[in-house]
Amino acid sequence: MKELKQITVIGLGLLGGSISLAALRAFPGLKTVGFTHRPSTRRKARQLAVASEVSADLKASVANADIVILATPISAFEEIFSQIGNALPKGCIVTDVGSTKVLPHRWAKKTLPKTVCYVGSHPIAGSEQRGVEVARDDLFDNALCILTATPKTNRLAVQTLKKFWSAIGCSVKLMSPARHDRILANISHLPHITAVSLVNAGNSEDLKHAGKGFIDTTRIASSPVNIWVDVLLTNAGNITKGIDRITAELAKLKKAIKTADGRQIEKLLEAARKKRNELIDYKMKNKEIIS
Amino acid sequence: MKELKQITVIGLGLLGGSISLAALRAFPGLKTVGFTHRPSTRRKARQLAVASEVSADLKASVANADIVILATPISAFEEIFSQIGNALPKGCIVTDVGSTKVLPHRWAKKTLPKTVCYVGSHPIAGSEQRGVEVARDDLFDNALCILTATPKTNRLAVQTLKKFWSAIGCSVKLMSPARHDRILANISHLPHITAVSLVNAGNSEDLKHAGKGFIDTTRIASSPVNIWVDVLLTNAGNITKGIDRITAELAKLKKAIKTADGRQIEKLLEAARKKRNELIDYKMKNKEIIS
Repeated sequence: MKELKQITVIGLGLLGGSISLAALRAFPGLKTVGFTHRPSTRRKARQLAVASEVSADLKASVANADIVILATPISAFEEIFSQIGNALPKGCIVTDVGSTKVLPHRWAKKTLPKTVCYVGSHPIAGSEQRGVEVARDDLFDNALCILTATPKTNRLAVQTLKKFWSAIGCSVKLMSPARHDRILANISHLPHITAVSLVNAGNSEDLKHAGKGFIDTTRIASSPVNIWVDVLLTNAGNITKGIDRITAELAKLKKAIKTADGRQIEKLLEAARKKRNELIDYKMKNKEIIS
Repeated sequence: MKELKQITVIGLGLLGGSISLAALRAFPGLKTVGFTHRPSTRRKARQLAVASEVSADLKASVANADIVILATPISAFEEIFSQIGNALPKGCIVTDVGSTKVLPHRWAKKTLPKTVCYVGSHPIAGSEQRGVEVARDDLFDNALCILTATPKTNRLAVQTLKKFWSAIGCSVKLMSPARHDRILANISHLPHITAVSLVNAGNSEDLKHAGKGFIDTTRIASSPVNIWVDVLLTNAGNITKGIDRITAELAKLKKAIKTADGRQIEKLLEAARKKRNELIDYKMKNKEIIS
């Protein structure tokens, strides 16, 4: 990768702030510019020295960037692409950290100038917390970052971004935006949907007796709402299909319980136990989790 | 409580073994007798000194007990009650650690002699691991233990058990078996059902990309199957009603996503976030969880 001089992060929340901090740690001499439209976030970002420079001017913030990273809710991407388009230097790499990738690719193709290269990024990191004050330079250590590209995506830009995410701690995988969105529906968006449904279906007084099982199972229901509304809206097809599959599994269990069919309940529980244990074994073998 | 001389634990898995170890720690001079029908478990229990005495004779194991605690899968309770009935000393307290309580109360009433006192216990502790080899003397530290009693339950027996569970680390609450089973459906059995459904609805190859969110949300799907088949079968009414409520919540979300109704999605997600955050605040205020 040619020497990286400046990256610009648009949106300084947990993810955006952490990208800037991690990049400052990984690349000595790099300048990071952070844009946010909120004065209070700019103040906090400056106090915490989250970026080399904190900017209130969107176009000026990207004018000298080698890489521009959108870290706002997904619904803002298209408007940001159109606002920064003319200000982007030739050859600039544009990416984002949104949790869905098909629509960002479509918007980038439609809106960004041909002189820049768009690649999708999805670092699978974060937490149910939010805000620049929880940003940290090790958020991406050992995280998976999925890069998304189409047959027309510039391969050099993909390589550059791969090196960037690796340098700040991620292991990187490349796939198509469509495959990304299908996989993420299964591993992230549907668990979110079931956690929300589980909480909403429970009686508040009863829930006061909850133990670790319930607390863990529903942790992600405490995540920032605006980010998740965007995720669900931009991956609607995969998610509604997934809801149908989960509803079918629930119906199977309900029928087996209602008819006191112990063998069928055992079969369904055993299938899940085996599948999850194989997953955990795979993750441990790949050192993605530690026992 | 009159001086406790002997407790007998029937079933030496994670819970049974841990009860014996925790009681040995809490009550100097107490004798604990552990019964298990498996020779290999008896061998391990003796090697690990899990109980003062490890017995292969069910009747003899209870003959001198002040308290008898069933820690087997729920489906074995009725048969054990009928086998130990004649061997129980007068005034003996019989309890169990099953995750449902209506049926154990019914079986006890039907099967145990009038000379003993049955009270239900449900220490909400454990993990997805199993077996006497993972038993530990601090498993119940800060755990909630729900005692269940009917208007006919002997109050002195309730007080004695309350002191017993408190001494080994639990905070104790008393309620009716029906209320227990309704609450546990919400906080434990339904999260289990959704975790299992989520895993079964997912494609194994896609799941390999899972992050912390999926791993946490589905942890309980790795729990021992035989124990859970019993739980689901013995709390069928509450669970099938709960599945209906969850299915209705999933349908609401699906409809909102399908019609791109961002406001409705936001409303549903915000309701869950608020409810869960209130729960976490309540738990932290009560020092049941630590941030």
